[in-house]
Amino acid sequence: MKQASDILTFATAGCGLVEITREVADWARGAQVEQGLLTLLCRHTSASLLIQENAAPEVRPDIVDWLDRLAPEGPHYRHDDEGPDDMPAHLRAILTGVNLQIPIIDGRLALGTWQGIYLAEHRRRPHHRQVAVHLIGA
Amino acid sequence: MKQASDILTFATAGCGLVEITREVADWARGAQVEQGLLTLLCRHTSASLLIQENAAPEVRPDIVDWLDRLAPEGPHYRHDDEGPDDMPAHLRAILTGVNLQIPIIDGRLALGTWQGIYLAEHRRRPHHRQVAVHLIGA
Amino acid sequence: MKQASDILTFATAGCGLVEITREVADWARGAQVEQGLLTLLCRHTSASLLIQENAAPEVRPDIVDWLDRLAPEGPHYRHDDEGPDDMPAHLRAILTGVNLQIPIIDGRLALGTWQGIYLAEHRRRPHHRQVAVHLIGA
Repeated sequence: MKQASDILTFATAGCGLVEITREVADWARGAQVEQGLLTLLCRHTSASLLIQENAAPEVRPDIVDWLDRLAPEGPHYRHDDEGPDDMPAHLRAILTGVNLQIPIIDGRLALGTWQGIYLAEHRRRPHHRQVAVHLIGA
Repeated sequence: MKQASDILTFATAGCGLVEITREVADWARGAQVEQGLLTLLCRHTSASLLIQENAAPEVRPDIVDWLDRLAPEGPHYRHDDEGPDDMPAHLRAILTGVNLQIPIIDGRLALGTWQGIYLAEHRRRPHHRQVAVHLIGA
Repeated sequence: MKQASDILTFATAGCGLVEITREVADWARGAQVEQGLLTLLCRHTSASLLIQENAAPEVRPDIVDWLDRLAPEGPHYRHDDEGPDDMPAHLRAILTGVNLQIPIIDGRLALGTWQGIYLAEHRRRPHHRQVAVHLIGA
């Protein structure tokens, strides 16, 4: 049984979803594990992780619009230290979550055919975002 | 330390929650682990997993109605390749999430007394859904 | 490779967020692991776990207000066995989730600088809440 862990960094272009499936799969492959468990943790409170449809590109803006409807900007927040997109970004990160776990079976991430891994940026401006990755297996 | 992993398949009858606690617990028991970690990944983007109340049966339709309110069908989505329930199904899957982790303590899933494991089908029509399961422990 | 697991108990003062970062980190430190994976499971259906901003204190009431807007009390639920805050508490627990996973790197939880671990109480009255913790690593 062995482990690997690292901090991966991704650039975002402001509010939207960035697919990170390939980078994550490449990192996991480097550990040369046939069976195991991969865990991801987004190390931020205004960006998050989700697994979603990787085929139809119009799904992503639909997701962003929906997050905007459920956690809109507005004058009703106490917290706005970093501007009007600050508190909505926290709420959208709660809604999607900061963790993902993917079993590794037969040397491959056990994702479904249509599943991709996405980093969701919830702030308006571009950021560099860190994702802690951990793998255990054999 | 040992591992086990598998793909379990469940039939759904269209939109609603299917309890899978027994099937998951039976599978985990087969690995004969006293202490460990069980991980589940729903391999779809329009079905998901959640842990919820296993006693009062009226909780489930209340959950389905609530998901319908937060991610309703409507003409405002770009993505509708598979019909009006397509994009709402993706959004409801994001809201509930596709992962669960349950520690195993003293040979049993460490769920609370009132917690059951549910597979949530978000499409109108019946489907067969795959859940990847992984267990590590001793 | 070694494991540790336990059930931690936290008191809540009714609806709101209780920071548990220190208690969880102290417990993890006791296992003396340099590299590993920490998993948390809230063993309830009306309380949950989330990682959020640990600096600005006004973020917490903003989160509570938002949960109240997305899953309000009201006469439209079938399930109200334990009062009007019963079903909304279940829904808020679904929205935030009952699981967290935190890699351990260089002997420390790999949380971001501004991330704290919170137990969210969704019922009006104070409760004692159990969180199952599991750690595997070396």
